[in-house]
Amino acid sequence: MEFTEKTTKKETIFEGKVVDLSVHDVTLPDGRSSKREVINHSGAVAVVAVTPEQKIVMVKQYRKPLEKPLVEIPAGKLEGTDSPEETAARELKEETGYTAGRLQKIASFYTSPGFADEIVHLYEAFDLEAGEPETEEDEFIELIEVSLEEADELIQKEEIHDAKTMYAVQYVKTILDKK
Amino acid sequence: MEFTEKTTKKETIFEGKVVDLSVHDVTLPDGRSSKREVINHSGAVAVVAVTPEQKIVMVKQYRKPLEKPLVEIPAGKLEGTDSPEETAARELKEETGYTAGRLQKIASFYTSPGFADEIVHLYEAFDLEAGEPETEEDEFIELIEVSLEEADELIQKEEIHDAKTMYAVQYVKTILDKK
Repeated sequence: MEFTEKTTKKETIFEGKVVDLSVHDVTLPDGRSSKREVINHSGAVAVVAVTPEQKIVMVKQYRKPLEKPLVEIPAGKLEGTDSPEETAARELKEETGYTAGRLQKIASFYTSPGFADEIVHLYEAFDLEAGEPETEEDEFIELIEVSLEEADELIQKEEIHDAKTMYAVQYVKTILDKK
Repeated sequence: MEFTEKTTKKETIFEGKVVDLSVHDVTLPDGRSSKREVINHSGAVAVVAVTPEQKIVMVKQYRKPLEKPLVEIPAGKLEGTDSPEETAARELKEETGYTAGRLQKIASFYTSPGFADEIVHLYEAFDLEAGEPETEEDEFIELIEVSLEEADELIQKEEIHDAKTMYAVQYVKTILDKK
């Protein structure tokens, strides 16, 4: 089957610090026309870090679109020429104080492929060393370390409630089962 | 810790068919000011449907933000006053032809809480009956049924590459393990 939607006209609506928005006039595979709203984002990384005590390292922070705080695994936006792995190491250190001896990529996924190109690269951190967080000026972040049981409780309470963190909790279940 | 970011001014940039975009001037917990780019979305549903042959029902469709097709579980946007469960049943029927005797909610998650309020409600479908798809006018969709092994191959090939579908594949692994 032919799927391609060819852009005949692209209107840039907004170019921001986090997202750009454009509207594309497209030609569908059958020749008809339609419009597509497209958010462009630089991509992000997130880190699954499990302490020797088998606690998952998480951070609580305010999420303006939801008007409430969420508990999430450490994460951050890709910026400039930094690689996903460098960004993962930096965000883990900044947000939680932990340094990873080694990072290994475990997955990547588009978060909302219907309207956005944001991709999240997910890393697992090994050989953790605790240290002092170095949060950025406009980040208000609380470090929380949770057992798998506590993670399930936070999911029930909808304090953990985002795709990357819920994927990560499922992932930690599979690795701890294997140990 | 106090987390709230209070909006002092909200500028609406765009109101579209799928997303709205606004920029908020906010006061941070320490009194300083910042800006937040916020995408509003009506939310979505997605359906985990496993056939009696233990194949996961998926659809292949073009994703304009990525300029390529992805293989995903059936999903769709919430519209009007339809409940998530009604929408899940309708999207499953429209995109795949399957009718579910019963739908059970298994999770919900925000896809990109840093900049968007989109939430996905994930349902598991039981008592499937095959039928004819009823795709909408501007949807070009191919039905694909994949075993868990094939799903893992599609993840490796990055043809399955979105958060809800990768979460769903992990979920199906846990339910098939229990059977």
